[in-house]
Amino acid sequence: MAAVAGHEDTRTRLLATALKLFTEHGVEGTSLQMIADELGVTKAAVYYHFKTKDEITEAVVEPGLRELESIVAAAARQRRPGARIDHLLAGFVDVVVRHRALVALFSGDPGVARALEKHFFRKESFMTGMMTILTGPDPDAARVVAVHAALGGIALAGGAQELARFSDDVLRESLLDVGRKLLGRPRRRPAVPS
Amino acid sequence: MAAVAGHEDTRTRLLATALKLFTEHGVEGTSLQMIADELGVTKAAVYYHFKTKDEITEAVVEPGLRELESIVAAAARQRRPGARIDHLLAGFVDVVVRHRALVALFSGDPGVARALEKHFFRKESFMTGMMTILTGPDPDAARVVAVHAALGGIALAGGAQELARFSDDVLRESLLDVGRKLLGRPRRRPAVPS
Repeated sequence: MAAVAGHEDTRTRLLATALKLFTEHGVEGTSLQMIADELGVTKAAVYYHFKTKDEITEAVVEPGLRELESIVAAAARQRRPGARIDHLLAGFVDVVVRHRALVALFSGDPGVARALEKHFFRKESFMTGMMTILTGPDPDAARVVAVHAALGGIALAGGAQELARFSDDVLRESLLDVGRKLLGRPRRRPAVPS
Repeated sequence: MAAVAGHEDTRTRLLATALKLFTEHGVEGTSLQMIADELGVTKAAVYYHFKTKDEITEAVVEPGLRELESIVAAAARQRRPGARIDHLLAGFVDVVVRHRALVALFSGDPGVARALEKHFFRKESFMTGMMTILTGPDPDAARVVAVHAALGGIALAGGAQELARFSDDVLRESLLDVGRKLLGRPRRRPAVPS
């Protein structure tokens, strides 16, 4: 058990170190050796967990994607279409803001973009679920384009270097506004007395 | 003169061929030799015009960037702030739609993204000019984020493979809607009688 815990710990530290180095040097500019050196372990110890840098990149983006998947599933369980959209939008914006560093990396770095793409293509049902909730049934072209622009715009702005000066809260509220405007959702829902 | 015209012609055909191959194989998957073969010329003939693939990539995106620069300049000459925004938005959307294939490439391919980035960083005044027109003076955070999301969302949606089925006109009108909503501009300006 202690050995397993040790391995889990190394894996977690390895991913945190990889993200740090990716941010500083880009995915292309980071080697397994650099990750090992920064961690103070041997390259063999890195190999124990990951055989390639692509595997590391995928593992770095995995938690955010998992969160998104459960947000889509929870949104789909809402009864009203508007509530489904609001739930998904709030969740998507929240994931983008909490993973700002990663999102910044992904919009700027081919390595992360490739890893994400592989994921998105593999899990087509996930993207389809997201689009179905946001466009609604039988959407016209304007709606489909608006949904694409909303998701893309939120992700790009969320990771934009020029917006790094804004706090998480300010960024979250501004990105929610972007989504609400494009998806035609009201700015604030009054609290419903229970 | 005839020789110069011949060279110009080869250069133009070379760039069109490069864009075609980039679209099919990605920038990374396209070699100078492939471009030469497709054109039916020697690799030396390609070298006469471009020494590296990066030079070709930059030359491929150059016309669109030049157009954007003159749109920003023309927008800046409008007297009313609203008219400046409308001019820039219409011009930006139009460039994105007319260069859809290139925009698709740039959002999906690291090579083109790098070439564009180099350009944007080199011409900082161009990006600053664009942002100044769209945000207005002393913008709050929400406005800055909305402008980023508008430009990013329009570019990403404009190049999205999933939206390739929409005609240029439908895409243009939908992207204009996206921009108007995020930038707070009215949907239609009534024709002013002269």
